[in-house]
This record gives sequence, structure tokens and C-alpha cells, in this order.
Amino acid sequence: MEQLKNSMNLTMLFDYYEMTMMNGYFENGLEKRIGYFDMFFRRVPDDGGFAIMAGLEQVIDYIENLTFLPEDIAYLREKKIFSEDFLRYLETFKFSCDVWAMPEGSVIFPNEPILVVRGPVMEAQLLETMILLTINHQSLIATKANRIVRAAMGRPVAEFGARRAHSYSAAIYGARAAYIGGVSSTSCALTDQQFGVPASGTMAHSWVQMFPTEYEAFEAYAKVYPESCVLLVDTYDVLGSGLPNAIRCFKDVILPTGNRPVGIRIDSGDIAYLTKKARAMLDEAGFPDCKIIISNSLDEFLIHDILNQGAEIDSFGVGERLITSRSEPVFGGVYKLVAVEDENGIIHPRIKLSENVTKITNPGFKKVWRLYGEDGEAFADVLTLADEVIDPAKGPYTIFHPEYTWKSKKIENFTAREMLVPIYEKGRLVYDRPTVQEIRKYCEKELSLLWNEVKRLKNPHVFYVDLSQKLWEMKESLLKEKGRR
Amino acid sequence: MEQLKNSMNLTMLFDYYEMTMMNGYFENGLEKRIGYFDMFFRRVPDDGGFAIMAGLEQVIDYIENLTFLPEDIAYLREKKIFSEDFLRYLETFKFSCDVWAMPEGSVIFPNEPILVVRGPVMEAQLLETMILLTINHQSLIATKANRIVRAAMGRPVAEFGARRAHSYSAAIYGARAAYIGGVSSTSCALTDQQFGVPASGTMAHSWVQMFPTEYEAFEAYAKVYPESCVLLVDTYDVLGSGLPNAIRCFKDVILPTGNRPVGIRIDSGDIAYLTKKARAMLDEAGFPDCKIIISNSLDEFLIHDILNQGAEIDSFGVGERLITSRSEPVFGGVYKLVAVEDENGIIHPRIKLSENVTKITNPGFKKVWRLYGEDGEAFADVLTLADEVIDPAKGPYTIFHPEYTWKSKKIENFTAREMLVPIYEKGRLVYDRPTVQEIRKYCEKELSLLWNEVKRLKNPHVFYVDLSQKLWEMKESLLKEKGRR
Repeated sequence: MEQLKNSMNLTMLFDYYEMTMMNGYFENGLEKRIGYFDMFFRRVPDDGGFAIMAGLEQVIDYIENLTFLPEDIAYLREKKIFSEDFLRYLETFKFSCDVWAMPEGSVIFPNEPILVVRGPVMEAQLLETMILLTINHQSLIATKANRIVRAAMGRPVAEFGARRAHSYSAAIYGARAAYIGGVSSTSCALTDQQFGVPASGTMAHSWVQMFPTEYEAFEAYAKVYPESCVLLVDTYDVLGSGLPNAIRCFKDVILPTGNRPVGIRIDSGDIAYLTKKARAMLDEAGFPDCKIIISNSLDEFLIHDILNQGAEIDSFGVGERLITSRSEPVFGGVYKLVAVEDENGIIHPRIKLSENVTKITNPGFKKVWRLYGEDGEAFADVLTLADEVIDPAKGPYTIFHPEYTWKSKKIENFTAREMLVPIYEKGRLVYDRPTVQEIRKYCEKELSLLWNEVKRLKNPHVFYVDLSQKLWEMKESLLKEKGRR
Repeated sequence: MEQLKNSMNLTMLFDYYEMTMMNGYFENGLEKRIGYFDMFFRRVPDDGGFAIMAGLEQVIDYIENLTFLPEDIAYLREKKIFSEDFLRYLETFKFSCDVWAMPEGSVIFPNEPILVVRGPVMEAQLLETMILLTINHQSLIATKANRIVRAAMGRPVAEFGARRAHSYSAAIYGARAAYIGGVSSTSCALTDQQFGVPASGTMAHSWVQMFPTEYEAFEAYAKVYPESCVLLVDTYDVLGSGLPNAIRCFKDVILPTGNRPVGIRIDSGDIAYLTKKARAMLDEAGFPDCKIIISNSLDEFLIHDILNQGAEIDSFGVGERLITSRSEPVFGGVYKLVAVEDENGIIHPRIKLSENVTKITNPGFKKVWRLYGEDGEAFADVLTLADEVIDPAKGPYTIFHPEYTWKSKKIENFTAREMLVPIYEKGRLVYDRPTVQEIRKYCEKELSLLWNEVKRLKNPHVFYVDLSQKLWEMKESLLKEKGRR
């Protein structure tokens, strides 16, 4: 259990081609060749205006536990394609790369590096699957959760999805990511135990069915939990039996204990209609403070619609459509070689062309700068080469669209912030890891620095991610060199 | 690592309401109350004709490792809502339920129990999240994988999706489930190591970019792997440089070693066009045996379309759209109370009504029978109460549609097979667990007993899942009793 919670060894969770390539580099005498890899993504799920970075903590956990065990070496040896020298190298494998990343909770945009690895290409290549797997998953869920939280317009959202998650770590870390993205609680006890994400939950339909009558089920529950009584009212008939039985139970069981009922939950039926009726019944019975909690295959689209129709809802439980990001369950982050370093420390940029133009990469060892206007709000990101500095004190700076270069703008009175922070230096962890509660607060603050237009659920304003003049020229020259037919 | 691989303790992976309900049953003196729970699902993802059962092995792993550790009890105690007597009960928790399930690889249909738990409701309730989480996930992926395999019309499909999976266990067990569903191999080394699902993989674009020229990259790879040389030809320009360089490398490096080139891989661009051109170039160069492998956001729909357009493809690598079941990433299995047993051993059926008619459950302790015609092919499933037997020797049997009851059919000359097999008896594992290779073969055989019309990707024939007369009458009478307004 401790291993699962704190120190899972996932060394063998790699794509097999990483091992064939590592062995290939080794056999070609390239074990000391230094490479630079960028992780970036190409589009925001659900055509949103931004995504939220999440999963770095688990990438660090993975790296800290990176060790090939004897049984791993034995497994690889059986494949009969890896050299014994290479297997000995793995036996004593020691991570020595530099890593930079955007902190978890950061607002991230397409085509900018969100994580950069510099080091021996063999090591950097090995990390590919786990970095992508971890950050793709958690960023997907944090981003989706934030969409749902925005649609709920200030009402708390509880994450309810474990039973529909894609296996165990999707439930555990998905709930963590959802919390970073703004949900208030989770149904997953293990995520609470491990990360302190508040767990919540009351009863299932089975509780109600277990007793001879609905009223007896409510009564039995209320007696055990008089201080936190939430009753599920849709097992048989929401308005015909659920509500009347709940109100009777609140009056006869909860009030005499000196408590107030906390809420009722509805999990099926026409939510807009039922909640308005339920609100009226509860108010009339003297329980205007009794919350109405809704759960039933909800997502940001449905929440937006039923709130627009005047549904009377105090909080939401959201399950499968959050934990799987059902409307778009893939966060397409990739990990691409952008430069190699020769023996003299000279960095040579690399580019990947493609028949699909959107798959062309931004070459070189780079930095990401976020630019803020006088109002303190972010208005553009700029990628530069690593040796460039954007210094507002040095006067106006010109940004321009990387494809339609005639679209340019001279900017003044701005501030610039470097977004990638050091995580590892030569294999040594140099990052002070925040708690998930700190990450959630940081995310909230970062979102407050974003234009509302970028936060629209539909057709958001496209945030600019530009290239510096120097980076743009380098990319153009590589395109011309490699793109020649 | 061993813990992860063989004996992960996931006891705390439950929805919090399971614990509040357990404590509630305990406090109400119901710790010995026996209940019956069915797991079933309501519709097949992608509107397919059937789904494939998977994940039972991991449910068993979970049950075998079910133990509350001192830190778990301490965590629960801090919540201050669970009684000390209940916490002591958890400390010495011992699983004592009966479990029946359809074996992994079984063809399964909506609204029939695929797993049944009988036992103390407290225990049976605790299992809910893990049973659903595990079987929902793996059945989703096995079902999706089989759709993709069917679309590939006999060409091997390699599972490539780890980097886009929803975290670690989704990658590991997703690859296992995909193998059950018919894929030939996986990219995930850990799934190979753990389950013997063959791992495969060659090179990424980074390998090609690492070298000064594409040819040098191919040459370096071919020298290390002359017997299994597959070259990725789309880093710069498939037809302009990738293919010519690959052919040169095959001639100059592979042939002199006495080997034949294995294949080329294309990961972008217009697949129908590029593969036809590539096939012609390879044939002309004397490599008609060199395979063309395709990967690029494929799924069953795209595979069907490009094969229809005459694409020249020998095998597929399928990633994100398989491992996330992107077109429909939720397998909506539920776990519902269907009966309770009183002190005298009398079973009282339970039903859940709903404003959504599709959410009404089939009550009672039940069996599932699959009926086969004289041709050996399955033509219907029938749910009966547990004390019923469908015995073809006793003469004709009448099946009828559970909603449109005038649709009925008298059947003769059929065989009947009980689909749920015993897994646990009073907490003791009585099931002889097959290997994943055996499961895959069983699945293939089960699929061969299914009408082709049910296996169509679009608008398949709807397989009948009927109720016995006795079960239908019980359901009707409960509906009338509970549905009264």
C-alpha cells in the first residue's frame, strides 16, 4: 500500500520502442549524446481557450523511483535483441538530466513547451511515455473539471466518477487533477487519504431499496447521520414519494436532534422541472436552507442549459463525463526532439516536418515568456531561444503572428514572466513541491489573470503564442533546408 | 514493484458513500443482512451489437488483497462519523460473499447480469466501486479493440496508446483488455512483462532527427537490428526522402546481412494515397515482402474508410482512439441491489424505478442462459430466476420480448448454456483463473458462435435478451406495487 501511495516503481512502464532506441544509441556509441526534448500539445480539448497543467508531482515521483530491478533486466535479456553491455548500463541506470516545467495549475496553451528535458538522449528518451501519460491524463482532467466548474457559476461541484474511470490510477489521480481544476470534493476515499482532497458521499439507491419502505430507509439514515443528512429521493418517484418522505423525515427525525437537514439529491429525470418543484416543496415545508444536489450524466454543456432554464440547484455531483473527459477524452501532448548538442556544447536545432502542417515542431532550446499588460492580465506568450531575454525595461517589444507575420504589434508598459521553472539539475531534484491545496490556489490565481474572453466555454478568444524574431528565423531556415523537394 | 504487479492493495479505493452506508447498516443492526447485487450495463458503446467481458482477474486480485491497514482505520477515525465498533469490524474484515460472473472474453449484452454478488450487504456494498471501475474499464477497451480488429479485416493491429491512456493502470490493463479483444501486440513493456502480451516497437521520429541525415539514421538502426528492421519514413517527406532512403538502406545494409527488411511505418499524411505509392516503390525495388505499417489517430471508422479506398496496408498501430475508446469513453456498467434475504432464507426481490424508464432494474436473484440453434450459433439470452432451469430435453420453450410481449417465439431443437459461473463461494475463491492467452482464445471462440449480423460495426442486429415468464411476472408485479402514484 505504501508503495502504491508514495513510491510506485513504474520504470517498466515505457513504450517498447524506447528500449530499442536506447539500445540502438548505445550500440552506435551515442550514450553521451545530449538532446533537448519538448513536451507540448497541439490543441485544447473541447475547443477551449486554454488548458491547465497537472501531473508534475507524479512525474517527479516516477523519476525518483526510476530503477531497473533484476527481474526487469531478466525480462529484457529474454528478448535477445539487447546487448549485455546495454543491460549492464540499465542495471546501474542513474538519472542525470535537467528538467524544466510549468508548475502544476499553470494555464497552458498549444504549441508552447510545458516541460523540457535536456540530457543524454538515452535517458531523455526513456522518460517519454511516463511524462506524456502522466501530464496528458491529469491536464486533461484538470482542464475538463475547470470547464464544468465555470459552467456551475459558483456552485460547488463534487467529483463522483471513480466507477467510470479508466482503471485505478485514473480514479485516484483524476480526482487529484479535478481538484486542481476547481472541484470542491471527490467521492474517492483513497484520493482524500493520499492528498487531502475532501471526500464526500451519502447514500446509493441500494440503501433505499434495502428497507421495506422508502421512509424507513430515510429514517434509518437520518438517525445515524443527523448532522449531515442528505437523502437520495429518486429511487421510486421524486415528487410523489421521495420528497414527501424526505420532508417527513427531516421534521420527525432531524429537527428533534437540534440539527437542520443538509440536502436532498436527485439522480434522474428532468432536472430543470424536478428541482423547481422540489425547491417549492422544501421551502413550503420550512426548509429553504435544504440544498438540492444534482447528479445524472452531467457535463458543462448540460449544466449550462439547465441553469439557463432556471433549475434550482445548489451543487452538482459530476461523474463519468468529468473523470473520462467524455466529450474529448484525449489530451494530445507530444514529446519531440528539438535540438542536439555536439561535443563542443554547440546546440543544433532539430525540426520535424510533416504532411500535416500542424505536426511541424518548433525547433531549438527555448524559453516561454508570458506577457502581462498594465491591468495585470496576460495578453500573449512568446517563445524565445534560451539565450534571449525579454526585458520590458529595454523599451517596446514587437510581437507578431508566427504564420501571418504581417499581423504584428509593438507593445509597451508590459511585464514579462518566465514560465518554465527548474525541476531537475543534472538529475538532482531542485524543485520545492507544493501541496495539492497550494496548487489549487495557484491555479485559481493564474485563472484570475486571464481575460474572460479566453475563458468562454464556446468560441473563446484565441490567446497569442508567438515566436521571437530570432526563433522564427531559425525555424524558417530549417523549414527551407529540410522541406526542399 | 511486486506489489504493483501482483498484489496491489486497493482496499481504500471506494466511493466514500460506501463507507457511510456500511457504517449505517452496522449501526442499524443490519450487519448480517444478506443482499444480492447485479452488475449490468444498459447500452453497448458505439451502438455496437455486443460487448466483451474483461477485468475479472483484477477483481479477484482486489478481493484477495482486501485488508484495512492501521493507517486506513486511522484515516476513517479522523472523520469522526464512524463508530468504534464499526472500525473494529473493518480491522478484522473478512470477505464472505458468493460471486458469480461471466468469464472474461465472454460476449455480453445490455440488461443482463454479468456479475452477481450475494452476501452481507455491508461487504457487497464495499465492492461496488472496484467491481465497476475494473470491469467497466477493461470491457470498454476489449470491446473497442475488437471493433478495430474487425475493421482491419485480418490485418494485425498493434496497441500503441500508453502515452494517451488515462494514467498508469489504464495503460497496463488497457493493453491487457485490448489483447483479449484481439489486438496482436502492445507497445507497453510492463503489460508484456506482467501478462505476456507481446510487446513491439521500433523507432520514433526523434531517432531520425538525432542523426545529421535521414539515411544515416536508417543505417544506424539497420546495423543494430538487421533481423527486425522497420523504418519510420515520414519525419521529413514520405515519398521524397523517407522511401528512397529506406530502400537504399534495405539494399545496402539489410540485404548484405542475409536478411530481408521487415517493414516501413507511416505516421502522418494521406494514408490511402501514400501507401499505394509506397507499395509501388517497394515492389519495384524488389521488396514486395516489405510490410507497410500505418499509425495516425486511427480507429475502426478510419480503418474501414481507407481500406475501402484501396490503401495498401499490412498492419496497423492504433493508439489514443483505442486506449481511451475515444468515440465513446464510458462503459456504463452499474451495480444494483436486486434482492434481500430475510432470516428464514426467503429471497425478497427489489426493484429501482426511475423517471428514466431505461434505468429500471430487473429484480431478483437470477441466472443467464444463452440459447444456441442447430447451427451452433447463439440466437438469444434468457434471464430466469435462480431456481429455474431451461432444459431443451423438456420440449419447446417460448421466448418473448420483455416490453412488446406480443412478440414471442416457440423454440425447439436448441441447446441452453448457463453463462454465470461461480467465482467465490462464501468468500473462498473457487475459480480456476485462465491466462490472458487462454482468455483471448476463448473470446475468439465465443465470437465465432455469434451471428455476423450482430458483429456489424454499424446498425447491427439487436441480440435478444428476454425474461422468463416467471421473472417477467415478478417484475410486473413489483412495478405495479412501487409505481403506484
